[in-house]
Amino acid sequence: MVPQRFTRVQAALRQAGLDALLVTHPPNVRYLTGLQASAGVAVVTTQTCLLVVDFRYATSARTLAAYHPGLEVEVAEGSIDTAVAAAIRRLGVRRAGIEAEHLSVSRFHRLGSALADGQLQPADSPVVMSTERFVERMRAVKDSVEVEVLREAGRRISAVARNLRQWVGPGVSELDAAAAVDAAMRAAGFERPAFETIVASGPNGALPHARPTGRIIAEGDGVVLDFGGVYDGYCVDLTRTLQIGSTPAGFRHLFEAVREAQAAALGTVKPGAFPADIDGAARGVLAARGLGEAFGHGTGHGLGLEVHEEPRISKLAPAGEPVVAGMVFTIEPGAYVAGVGGVRIEDDVLVTPTGCELLTDVAVEL
Amino acid sequence: MVPQRFTRVQAALRQAGLDALLVTHPPNVRYLTGLQASAGVAVVTTQTCLLVVDFRYATSARTLAAYHPGLEVEVAEGSIDTAVAAAIRRLGVRRAGIEAEHLSVSRFHRLGSALADGQLQPADSPVVMSTERFVERMRAVKDSVEVEVLREAGRRISAVARNLRQWVGPGVSELDAAAAVDAAMRAAGFERPAFETIVASGPNGALPHARPTGRIIAEGDGVVLDFGGVYDGYCVDLTRTLQIGSTPAGFRHLFEAVREAQAAALGTVKPGAFPADIDGAARGVLAARGLGEAFGHGTGHGLGLEVHEEPRISKLAPAGEPVVAGMVFTIEPGAYVAGVGGVRIEDDVLVTPTGCELLTDVAVEL
Repeated sequence: MVPQRFTRVQAALRQAGLDALLVTHPPNVRYLTGLQASAGVAVVTTQTCLLVVDFRYATSARTLAAYHPGLEVEVAEGSIDTAVAAAIRRLGVRRAGIEAEHLSVSRFHRLGSALADGQLQPADSPVVMSTERFVERMRAVKDSVEVEVLREAGRRISAVARNLRQWVGPGVSELDAAAAVDAAMRAAGFERPAFETIVASGPNGALPHARPTGRIIAEGDGVVLDFGGVYDGYCVDLTRTLQIGSTPAGFRHLFEAVREAQAAALGTVKPGAFPADIDGAARGVLAARGLGEAFGHGTGHGLGLEVHEEPRISKLAPAGEPVVAGMVFTIEPGAYVAGVGGVRIEDDVLVTPTGCELLTDVAVEL
Repeated sequence: MVPQRFTRVQAALRQAGLDALLVTHPPNVRYLTGLQASAGVAVVTTQTCLLVVDFRYATSARTLAAYHPGLEVEVAEGSIDTAVAAAIRRLGVRRAGIEAEHLSVSRFHRLGSALADGQLQPADSPVVMSTERFVERMRAVKDSVEVEVLREAGRRISAVARNLRQWVGPGVSELDAAAAVDAAMRAAGFERPAFETIVASGPNGALPHARPTGRIIAEGDGVVLDFGGVYDGYCVDLTRTLQIGSTPAGFRHLFEAVREAQAAALGTVKPGAFPADIDGAARGVLAARGLGEAFGHGTGHGLGLEVHEEPRISKLAPAGEPVVAGMVFTIEPGAYVAGVGGVRIEDDVLVTPTGCELLTDVAVEL
C-alpha cells in the first residue's frame, strides 16, 4: 500500500503547486513509508519519496526500501535536517511545504537556515511554506488492509470490555482496576494501551478528563472506564459505564439519555453526513432531556495510527467536509453532573458505502 | 515553591528585554503554576503570572490560584490562544517571547493573527519573538522538594530492579517480561511508566531502541531491561542487563567495559564539570577496549517532570554550561555489537556541592 500512498501525495503536491512536502510528523512518516521511528523525515517530491534517517534507523529504513519500489533512503551523517536541506537543493526543489501543525518554530528556523546555507544569493534559496493536513486527510480514509486491522482490533477490545466486571467492583481502587484492564489488553494481543486508561468512580465520574486515583470503588458507585489499545500499529478506543450495586434513579436517567444519544448519532453516520450533524444528533437528544450543558466535549474522533486523528465529530469540524466511506471514528457522547456522577458510552464505527459498521459491541447494560 | 519559580522567570525576562513569556509547553506550565493539563498557557509578565485555561481545567486552576499568591487565572470563553492574545494587549505587553522549541508554526501564525486582530495600525501590534530554554534551564536545577521526590522515586525503582530475575528467565517473552515490570512499578507506587518499557533479549539487545517483541527469552541470552516510572509527577529511569544461564566470554567483556565506563563517568560528576567531559569519560573507557563504535548514543539526560530534559550529557551539549549542584540526570553508557548483543547500564545521580549522590543502586552483577 505504501507506494500508492506517496503517489497520492505527489498528485496533491502538483495540485497545490508545490515541488515537495517535508513530512516530519512521525505517524505521517510511518503511514507513507512504513518507518516506525521517533525521528526521520520523508521528502516527497513530485518524482520520488526520499526517507532521511539517522544511523539508529538505517537498517529498518533500508529494509523498507527493499520492499517498496520508489522509496529511496538516505542515512544522515550529522543532523537529519541538514541532510534534508541538502537533499532539497540537490533535487532542485523550489517550493517545499512543511507540516506547520507539527513542526516547531525553532526547527522551522533551523531548516530555513540550512537551506540558505552556502547560497551566494539568499533569493536563490528554495522557499519553505506552511501546509496543513496534507497527509492527515489521506489517513482519514482507511484502505482495505487498515480496515481489516481495525476490525480485528475492535473484536479484541470488545472481548476485553465484556469482562470488565471481573476487575471492577467494591473494594478495588481505580488504579488497580486500570492496571487490570491494561493487563487484559496485553493478554488480548494489544502492543500497548493507546492512552492512559481512565477509571473514574463515583464523584470522579463527573470529571471528563479524570485520571485513575487511589479511590476505592464502593457499592452504589457509577464507574466510567475508558480504554484503548494499539493493535498492529492501529488504535481502537472504547468506553463503558458500569453501576456497582443498585442503581439510583438519577443515574439510570443519565445512562438512558447517553445511550439514546449514541444511538441517534450512530443512526446518522453514512457517506455525505457532516460531522457537525452527527454531533448535533447526539447533542439534540441530551438537550431534550435537560442535559445539554452536561455534555461538554465532542461526539467523536478518528482512529488509526493515532488515537485522535481526523475526522473530528464535533460542531467545530471544518465545514463542507462530509464523512466518506472508509473513515473510522468513535461515537462517544457523555453527560457529567456534579453530585450525580458521569456516564460516557463509546464505540467505534467504520463508514460503509451505505451507512456504518460497528467495529465494537455496543454496550447494552449499565 | 511555585511563586518563587515565576519570580525567577520575571527576573530573566527583564534581563532579556522582554515584557512577557508565553509558556505553552505543558511540563513548563506545570512547573510554573502547578497545573497538570494538556492545554493551558501561562502568561508570565514582569508584573504577574496569568494562567489561561479552558472550562475543563477551570476548577483545578482556581484551586491552584488560591494556594499561590500572585497567580491569576482566566477561563477562556472560546479558544485559549484568543484569550491569551487579548490578555497580552490588555496587559500592555509590547514584546512577548514564545517557546519556539515547543510551539508549532501553525499555532505561532494563529497567535500572531489574533494579536493583530482589531488593531487599526498593524505596527501597533505587540511583537512576538522566539525564545528557547527559558524555563527548561530553570527546571534543570531541582529545588529541595523536587530532590526529595526524586530520592524517593530512585529508592522505589531500585527496589523494582532488585527483583528483575523474578520476571525474566527462559521461556518468558519480552512482552510478558515488560508487562511484569510495568505491574511491579505500579505496585511500587509509580503513577505510570515514564516510557514504554524496553526488554531486548539476545540479538535484539544490539538495537539501542528496541521495543519488546514476542521473542521468547532463552538460556544463553543477554537481556537489556530499560524502564522508568513517574512518581508524584517526577521521572526516574534505570537500565539493567542480565545474563540468562552461563555467560559467553564476549558478553562478559562487554558488560565489564560498560560497567567501567559508567564508573568512570560517575567519577567525574561534580559542580563545574562539563557534560561533554562526563560523556567523554565513559566514551574513553569504551574506546580503549575497542568499543568506541559500539556506543552510539549520549551518556545521559536530565530527569524531572519529563523523562528527557536538560542537561544532556553528551558531546553535543551546549559548550560553556557546566553541571551545577541540584541537577539530576542519568549515566547510561552502552555497547551494542551485532551478533554478540548489547549491554547498557543506567543509574540516576544528583549533583551535590562536592560531587554526586546516586539516587539508584548501581548494578553489580550481570
